Amino acid sequence: MTVRVAVAGASGYAGGELLRLLLGHPDVEIGALTAGGNAGTPLSQHQPHLVPLADRVLQDTTAAELAGHDVVFLALPHGKSAELAAQLGDDVLVIDCGADHRLTDAADWERWYGGEHAGSWPYGMPELPGARENLRDVKRVAVPGCFPTAASIALAPAFAAGIVEPDVVVVAATGTSGAGKSLKPNLLGSEVMGAASAYNVGGRHRHTPEIAQNLGKIAGTRVAVSFTPVLVPMPRGILATCTAPLKSTVDVRAVYEKAYADEPFLHLLPEGVWPTTAATLGSNALHVQAVADPDTNRLVVVAAVDNLTKGTAGAAVQSMNLALGLPETTGLSTVGVAP
Amino acid sequence: MTVRVAVAGASGYAGGELLRLLLGHPDVEIGALTAGGNAGTPLSQHQPHLVPLADRVLQDTTAAELAGHDVVFLALPHGKSAELAAQLGDDVLVIDCGADHRLTDAADWERWYGGEHAGSWPYGMPELPGARENLRDVKRVAVPGCFPTAASIALAPAFAAGIVEPDVVVVAATGTSGAGKSLKPNLLGSEVMGAASAYNVGGRHRHTPEIAQNLGKIAGTRVAVSFTPVLVPMPRGILATCTAPLKSTVDVRAVYEKAYADEPFLHLLPEGVWPTTAATLGSNALHVQAVADPDTNRLVVVAAVDNLTKGTAGAAVQSMNLALGLPETTGLSTVGVAP
Amino acid sequence: MTVRVAVAGASGYAGGELLRLLLGHPDVEIGALTAGGNAGTPLSQHQPHLVPLADRVLQDTTAAELAGHDVVFLALPHGKSAELAAQLGDDVLVIDCGADHRLTDAADWERWYGGEHAGSWPYGMPELPGARENLRDVKRVAVPGCFPTAASIALAPAFAAGIVEPDVVVVAATGTSGAGKSLKPNLLGSEVMGAASAYNVGGRHRHTPEIAQNLGKIAGTRVAVSFTPVLVPMPRGILATCTAPLKSTVDVRAVYEKAYADEPFLHLLPEGVWPTTAATLGSNALHVQAVADPDTNRLVVVAAVDNLTKGTAGAAVQSMNLALGLPETTGLSTVGVAP
Amino acid sequence: MTVRVAVAGASGYAGGELLRLLLGHPDVEIGALTAGGNAGTPLSQHQPHLVPLADRVLQDTTAAELAGHDVVFLALPHGKSAELAAQLGDDVLVIDCGADHRLTDAADWERWYGGEHAGSWPYGMPELPGARENLRDVKRVAVPGCFPTAASIALAPAFAAGIVEPDVVVVAATGTSGAGKSLKPNLLGSEVMGAASAYNVGGRHRHTPEIAQNLGKIAGTRVAVSFTPVLVPMPRGILATCTAPLKSTVDVRAVYEKAYADEPFLHLLPEGVWPTTAATLGSNALHVQAVADPDTNRLVVVAAVDNLTKGTAGAAVQSMNLALGLPETTGLSTVGVAP
Repeated sequence: MTVRVAVAGASGYAGGELLRLLLGHPDVEIGALTAGGNAGTPLSQHQPHLVPLADRVLQDTTAAELAGHDVVFLALPHGKSAELAAQLGDDVLVIDCGADHRLTDAADWERWYGGEHAGSWPYGMPELPGARENLRDVKRVAVPGCFPTAASIALAPAFAAGIVEPDVVVVAATGTSGAGKSLKPNLLGSEVMGAASAYNVGGRHRHTPEIAQNLGKIAGTRVAVSFTPVLVPMPRGILATCTAPLKSTVDVRAVYEKAYADEPFLHLLPEGVWPTTAATLGSNALHVQAVADPDTNRLVVVAAVDNLTKGTAGAAVQSMNLALGLPETTGLSTVGVAP
Repeated sequence: MTVRVAVAGASGYAGGELLRLLLGHPDVEIGALTAGGNAGTPLSQHQPHLVPLADRVLQDTTAAELAGHDVVFLALPHGKSAELAAQLGDDVLVIDCGADHRLTDAADWERWYGGEHAGSWPYGMPELPGARENLRDVKRVAVPGCFPTAASIALAPAFAAGIVEPDVVVVAATGTSGAGKSLKPNLLGSEVMGAASAYNVGGRHRHTPEIAQNLGKIAGTRVAVSFTPVLVPMPRGILATCTAPLKSTVDVRAVYEKAYADEPFLHLLPEGVWPTTAATLGSNALHVQAVADPDTNRLVVVAAVDNLTKGTAGAAVQSMNLALGLPETTGLSTVGVAP
Repeated sequence: MTVRVAVAGASGYAGGELLRLLLGHPDVEIGALTAGGNAGTPLSQHQPHLVPLADRVLQDTTAAELAGHDVVFLALPHGKSAELAAQLGDDVLVIDCGADHRLTDAADWERWYGGEHAGSWPYGMPELPGARENLRDVKRVAVPGCFPTAASIALAPAFAAGIVEPDVVVVAATGTSGAGKSLKPNLLGSEVMGAASAYNVGGRHRHTPEIAQNLGKIAGTRVAVSFTPVLVPMPRGILATCTAPLKSTVDVRAVYEKAYADEPFLHLLPEGVWPTTAATLGSNALHVQAVADPDTNRLVVVAAVDNLTKGTAGAAVQSMNLALGLPETTGLSTVGVAP
Repeated sequence: MTVRVAVAGASGYAGGELLRLLLGHPDVEIGALTAGGNAGTPLSQHQPHLVPLADRVLQDTTAAELAGHDVVFLALPHGKSAELAAQLGDDVLVIDCGADHRLTDAADWERWYGGEHAGSWPYGMPELPGARENLRDVKRVAVPGCFPTAASIALAPAFAAGIVEPDVVVVAATGTSGAGKSLKPNLLGSEVMGAASAYNVGGRHRHTPEIAQNLGKIAGTRVAVSFTPVLVPMPRGILATCTAPLKSTVDVRAVYEKAYADEPFLHLLPEGVWPTTAATLGSNALHVQAVADPDTNRLVVVAAVDNLTKGTAGAAVQSMNLALGLPETTGLSTVGVAP
């Protein structure tokens, strides 16, 4: 089986990572590559690491250019996906790496993003309880945000087992590629190297309602999420430190061992070993460790993930595999590039 | 006035930073420089940035070599300070950058460090309520740990104003120099670059009781401290994200403006601006921002500090100034080196 | 066809990269993994990114443990390969990532490494003129050094075309993994980040005679090689700037286009575009650009390569493929991981 | 003596470093701070590390705003200095950190920068033979480029002693701040970290004629300069590797010891020790080591310098001191910030 795939937004970081993974996928033929302002320029100018595609030129992101493919990946600024997807037809598998279709509550959308809610799509995080089945044979997928990937998978077992209070604190260190290729002074190399800095502090990051949505659905109640992202000097990677009060004394490790036992991309580390983002670079694995802190009666879970792979493009390919009926792990690896 | 100063542990990072600051201090003459295993080697081999001291050779760390100075700074492995200090005499100002004399509770010491408690010394964090006066004319100072510096100063105003519950979560990104020059595989550049990793998770870091001690003293009650350190790829700097439940709706900014108004080294940033460690490199300033998160009813405070300057050596010099009756800011700067 | 492969030195950087590539090789089954001082410890302690091998424990590096494999990769300290290879038998394909069998001249070996020369093996750089054929069906391969890979391939076309004088200057920036996992103070993250530093200056690096050997063989005369390595703050990657006087005015680009036309892993960049190591991370591609400087009448060639992939482990796998009669590119990719 | 100083271009990296140094200069009062597009914004938005100036707002860069100061530093895009300087009056000391007045040859200016040559000013590199005297009591100074600072000082002793041929190769690793705050994709942190990349290869960098001018003046003949800059992942620092053929066998160290003996900011390292940029961070020192390579009969000199301090702002302050008759080292330090 060979599916013909297009990527809209191919000059950005998510687009580049999609192409890196798709070049290694045995069932994929890469078709149209489109961009916004970069249309007409060679792909190699933006993605010099994609040598096999060095001769490609970026086309305009229009429905016409994207027509005629079995799968279309959208890596666009938010607010751009719904209209384009509508033009692509219901028989095309559309996988949106943007935020447009992640939130199920219209009021949440309006508060955090503004404008009219375009409706929610099946959510591409098969590791959440019951989620995998909902991705089979679908034609639309909303790929999760990178922080929600780390935080939700880290805390899902605890809420599923009912062992924590719905009052979580998440502080997540992130590499700079999470901010995309925006030409902002604070993202310049000179500013970033040697710098750890917090942003959108006080519950102002747009990934906050997505984390609350994921955990609230499992908990069956509203979960208060105090989320603070911290930019640190590395190109990729998220390390999320997540904590919540424990309801009682439990065997935390047993809870996590059971929850992750059959998950191909979730890697519970040996006891006493804590995750490092370096071990996840370029891989679709999410490394986790969890422990109870007896002095504060809190659960502390730390998750490491590559924001561009499992945090975006890897989840997109994983969702494609499920939607197409392919083995879920096709073209994806748990092996990172280190050091 | 010129005081003659010795530094024990001059080949390490804390020792090097002490010397950098002392070279710029107008009232100081640098005397003996001693080391443990590195005794007999040139200082320049370990501290090539200290050009004016390029001709110095490290001596043995013994009371004899350290005798005859007005001030002795100790930058030694923990457990080594008490005995040496006893041999130096009560008229010598001894400033210990190690942990030996920070904790006031002997049981805390035994639990977290082991061995017999050597007793506590005046604590070199003049910014805590009432602490400045306790440092004048003393002959012994325990320099605070780097994480406790960031977390305690960040949360002190909230506890002093009584606006938060005694249940805090602190997640602090730290540069690698906090671990010293230990030759451990996980501190190699190849491992560190591109890596964010948590360690001593679940309340196991030795700075935890020190934070709890500082905040508990202000709060007048036990404060639960969930503390997680995260190693990130930069040589210096700590960015501490600190949160606690708010007791009621308050004007957080007013609390912090008042608390820091007269502090020469505490810099409350303009509203909406969040700290970056890059702005504190080599300076004795601690940059802070605080905000209430209405969705979770939490206070979130972020503090940035150079772990080697205000976090160690700068606090040591600041304490020396107070102990000697010099202006507190002598030889110290709030200007960082950036980018 | 499935070949059973062992890796000696599996806890180091070269060993880890070999395993990363071998995990993606369709014709390989990974057998014994051995180590020196780390024997008995879990592989995951040293290579947390190799999730599929997380359960493996390192065995001792002995001929007995390595017996019974079709291919044995050696990633050992220099001087250790010859004796071990002799015990493995002539029918086993032994691929040595160390230096022992690279130099053809015994006097060179004695001068640069000391001790007795163990003899030279077929040299695993198929891109050199005539070299590919010499690797087919062999049972012993000496994998080139990382700097010689960049410098030799960069300058080979110029010497083969006879357009430059035999007097080259090579200055090569290198990431820290080139130094291995040695626990030296100057390799600590705190020292490395923010630091560019030269070492083995003045023609003292052991890769110098290897570069001279490769280029001299093509030139048919002794080539003077002034080589300076510069350590820069990144985990991987070599950027070699190579220059030599031009004999006359020539179309440099035509020379390079012709030389690299059929090479699967050599990527001559579009005119005006210069290599970056970031585009080669984890790939087996070597990116090159070349230009004439009319003011100095010099050729300047810049090559970027991942020192652990094409610079070591990738070349090893490429050589294995040739020696076994597999397609040369099996299990290897020209796609890098970026950003 | 207190001089009143203005800085034009205060929101950029050179401007920020000037202010950092001027804040520590005992004879300076900081007056007007001006900018181009950033006029009207708070300085703290661009230079959060300059805490004592946190209340300042940037004014427009006009002669009117800059009037009434004893010294005006210009950190402007090239081509902007001459007209502004003319309006400031001949009695004001104008120190230009830009390129406008460095080149003495009008044809060089037109070839490398384009437009009409504005004439040359006294060149602010007192370490060159005879240069110091030419800076006393002047009213105009052209501050050298950062690469020419490293390369010229590194090679000056060899040309002054007549021991090398006029055919030099310079390959210099540089931190990203040398490119300023330009919002270019290749300067984003995500692109820069993990990347070494060459640019302006083949003798196309504008600092090439400045190096040739400096060395040619000493040599008394045209010096061919093959110069390649390499961008590496650090905010600051230049490491220049410089080589030239030796005319005969000489005691290289003796030449350099003699040349640098009385220079306050030139630091010849102990034999066998090679420079690292990390030791120069924030300092005005230039660290050098030199050696003969007997195999190639070449001199190899390596110089490390902070591009923003001794490479720009430090040289500007050093020149100001000389022009004003102050001790040359006032407000400048040879102590770096490390690690």
